Amino acid sequence: MTNKMNLPNFDSISQAHDRIKPFIHKTPVLESSYLNNLLECSIYFKCENFQKVGAFKFRGALNAVLSNEKDTLKKGVTTHSSGNHAQALALAANLSGTKATIIMPQDASKSKIEAVKAYGADIIFCEPNLISREETCQKFIDKSGALFIHPYNDHSVISGQGTTAKEFIEEVPYMEMIVTPVGGGGLLSGTAIAAKSMTPSIRVFAGEPYGAGDACRSFYAGQLIQITNPNTIADGLRTSLGTITFSIIIQIVDSILTASDETIIAAMRLIWERMKIVVEPSAAVPLAAIMENKDIFKNKKVGVILSGGNADLDNLPWIKKT
Amino acid sequence: MTNKMNLPNFDSISQAHDRIKPFIHKTPVLESSYLNNLLECSIYFKCENFQKVGAFKFRGALNAVLSNEKDTLKKGVTTHSSGNHAQALALAANLSGTKATIIMPQDASKSKIEAVKAYGADIIFCEPNLISREETCQKFIDKSGALFIHPYNDHSVISGQGTTAKEFIEEVPYMEMIVTPVGGGGLLSGTAIAAKSMTPSIRVFAGEPYGAGDACRSFYAGQLIQITNPNTIADGLRTSLGTITFSIIIQIVDSILTASDETIIAAMRLIWERMKIVVEPSAAVPLAAIMENKDIFKNKKVGVILSGGNADLDNLPWIKKT
Repeated sequence: MTNKMNLPNFDSISQAHDRIKPFIHKTPVLESSYLNNLLECSIYFKCENFQKVGAFKFRGALNAVLSNEKDTLKKGVTTHSSGNHAQALALAANLSGTKATIIMPQDASKSKIEAVKAYGADIIFCEPNLISREETCQKFIDKSGALFIHPYNDHSVISGQGTTAKEFIEEVPYMEMIVTPVGGGGLLSGTAIAAKSMTPSIRVFAGEPYGAGDACRSFYAGQLIQITNPNTIADGLRTSLGTITFSIIIQIVDSILTASDETIIAAMRLIWERMKIVVEPSAAVPLAAIMENKDIFKNKKVGVILSGGNADLDNLPWIKKT
Repeated sequence: MTNKMNLPNFDSISQAHDRIKPFIHKTPVLESSYLNNLLECSIYFKCENFQKVGAFKFRGALNAVLSNEKDTLKKGVTTHSSGNHAQALALAANLSGTKATIIMPQDASKSKIEAVKAYGADIIFCEPNLISREETCQKFIDKSGALFIHPYNDHSVISGQGTTAKEFIEEVPYMEMIVTPVGGGGLLSGTAIAAKSMTPSIRVFAGEPYGAGDACRSFYAGQLIQITNPNTIADGLRTSLGTITFSIIIQIVDSILTASDETIIAAMRLIWERMKIVVEPSAAVPLAAIMENKDIFKNKKVGVILSGGNADLDNLPWIKKT
């Protein structure tokens, strides 16, 4: 039976915030008059690309690790992740004095692999699909007894991710809409819980790559549809929703909007060029969704969570290499 | 006879600050624990890449324009610049309701040319050397009667650039050293005046590309040496010191350190990868100078001015293109 105290709600998000606050960055909120003019709305960007490990994922992983007793952690922690949750868990484990072992797909970006190693974690590589990830991870757990920390389908991870929106709305209480990327749905479900609790009238949107549009399809079909062959530049969003994140999202999220990779790349470049900050493709998806749905956001005060900055600087999508 | 009131000193910097404050961004100061560990010192980065037009140059150009009467501005303003001063003067003119015409070298980066046009200025292209720039500019002045605003060898421009260090030291009063890039010397001389006035014990350094090392050679020779064939990735620093900037620099700057293009590119990449911000090659030169002279900065509190963020995103120095 699930412990009610662990269900993600505004209380668990507040508790998570108290728990992780000494270790995280309170990331800045930036604006761009160029983008506001271009899109005819007021956008506030919450810069989780400046978060430790370069992504919001540190909040959820750290909350998950710190929510466990030392004894539970003594055989180490493990997860499977295409990148940012991997770095996040590696650093969270490091700070908590335990060992992290990360199952990563072979095609994860070089900068993410190097960062995971730098935080002192071990890496086991697998095929770049969900089945191989889960099987490889289960084998390791059977052998080692390590504690599995799911990248998104976990109450304490969702509560940790929800601290981003809590911090954001505390700073910009008048925002009328909030947009996050959606992959597995940890950030989106945590954001929706925090936002609707703090500002009941706020509308919560997700941006999703068209080529990995399982969340959008699941949302409108009213049932969980798994993605089989995701095809998008936004490598952090190639996963499907989980059972827990889906059950939250279907209840309280207002809409999921898809964007093409072409628009995602254009949005990413606009953020680099105009805001002078480095964001990864996944982080540009909310702006891309706004660009493809200008009418919805026109004249509104819109919060956008820039989820991460771990772009592979050797492989920028707008540069053809030799 | 020069009006003493116009000589750059701390009073003229304070006056410039009052004059331009309503129009500029108070840029943030960032730190990176990774870079502090790597270089064994505490570095504070003043992010003028977030300044309007993406560079500190807006401060000087705006102060120069706003220091003139409307009548003096009625035939427009003009300058020659490899990029950021061009954008800066274009926007400053736009805000002041006058016309800017910019002489730009043919090899200026695409993003800089586009930005100048977007601010409503006209462009006249010239050969990429100082003689052609100056000749082309003089011809235009003779024809139009426009007011020339020099990119650096100008009292009001130097006072404007000095507001960066004033703002920086007001926020981080305990810094023991400050490092800027040096090209024409406007930022360096303004910084030195502000810094030595506010903190007499502070040591003022410049970083200069080895392939455009005229400031370093002039400084140690005790006389102004012009550069003829600058060869560096740092396109904003291919100019020589001016008579005014040299006379200030030789008196109160502590040292000028050169760095190789290889180190400049490595420093630029470190800033992008670790700090998640976009800086142009010229802005990475102070960090490169610290990397090549670690002993000088060891255990010190060091302020670094990140001069600009107008990198050409289609031409990143670490990516070989097709």
